[in-house]
Amino acid sequence: MSSKQLIHFGQFEISDQVFHLSSLCYALVNIKPILPGHVLVIPYRQAKRLTDLTQEEVTDIFTTVQKVQKMLAKKYFASGPEVGKVEDGSFNIAIQDGKWAGQTVDHVHCHVIPRTKDSNEGDGFYRRLQGEEGNIGGGFWDQNRPVQEGKFPMIEDEDRKPRSLEDMNEEAAFFQKEMEKLDSHH
Amino acid sequence: MSSKQLIHFGQFEISDQVFHLSSLCYALVNIKPILPGHVLVIPYRQAKRLTDLTQEEVTDIFTTVQKVQKMLAKKYFASGPEVGKVEDGSFNIAIQDGKWAGQTVDHVHCHVIPRTKDSNEGDGFYRRLQGEEGNIGGGFWDQNRPVQEGKFPMIEDEDRKPRSLEDMNEEAAFFQKEMEKLDSHH
Repeated sequence: MSSKQLIHFGQFEISDQVFHLSSLCYALVNIKPILPGHVLVIPYRQAKRLTDLTQEEVTDIFTTVQKVQKMLAKKYFASGPEVGKVEDGSFNIAIQDGKWAGQTVDHVHCHVIPRTKDSNEGDGFYRRLQGEEGNIGGGFWDQNRPVQEGKFPMIEDEDRKPRSLEDMNEEAAFFQKEMEKLDSHH
Repeated sequence: MSSKQLIHFGQFEISDQVFHLSSLCYALVNIKPILPGHVLVIPYRQAKRLTDLTQEEVTDIFTTVQKVQKMLAKKYFASGPEVGKVEDGSFNIAIQDGKWAGQTVDHVHCHVIPRTKDSNEGDGFYRRLQGEEGNIGGGFWDQNRPVQEGKFPMIEDEDRKPRSLEDMNEEAAFFQKEMEKLDSHH
């Protein structure tokens, strides 16, 4: 958010990548989106597991998921000049609740992932959610990873490289405006 | 439930496979469990998409998911004679919201799937969630599928066969008792 408010996602401090602040949770663009528009909804309180959340947090998180879906549909389910609606596409909503379910940051987070006919590529999607591309904790960790300098720079594996902060921040700013538009229509 | 209350899951009428009735949603054992303990939490109202749900339904569904997790942990995360706790294992919580996300019954349903170290088999899990084993709609449909009788009985593909009603009902009765125990401890 432009206020540079500092928010925690597990051990990570984030600010510009947040695109929506609700009463008990926020929405964040993903460092390693599995598909375009893949975002996260996260309680401010660093609860590790879904069962740790209060009823108020549960309500705020999933009603925020609904709002985020409507916002994402406008962009990702648009056909030509038409603004997209939720019913024009699909979403995977997923919580990896604990490490054996693929959780890599010890702070409950709900994935919201737009799907269309074009993104329907069988098991590749799920493979990536559980694989290195779904390793959000690893992505944030890599941002501060020491980089070897000098004659033999470390060769980054292109497939594993998280996207740039600039890229995330631009997307977050765009989503933030779209969420505000959505709220103003109520 | 033993009351033989008739409940709808999309076009399907179900009764004995339901193991918990909450105010706005119920919990159902799965006809095609991807892993042991794979169950569904479903609003009574046949809303198709997550965004169709009221705030009250959202709250009831996800607080019911939390309760169901505690119940499942007792059984599936138990080590030896010890009763299991949520923190002893993990869960995949997932909604396939729309057909491009793998939804096969036009009635919102939230998957609750216990995971342990032993069930952590890489992409096989996700492949099956999106594949024929995750095709819940197909499973219910097959129950009423005409069966060829006589000399050349149709050969069932063992991998695709939904489990028996008896098996589901037994499990539902067990889970129902466990949910009641959990409630009585509050």
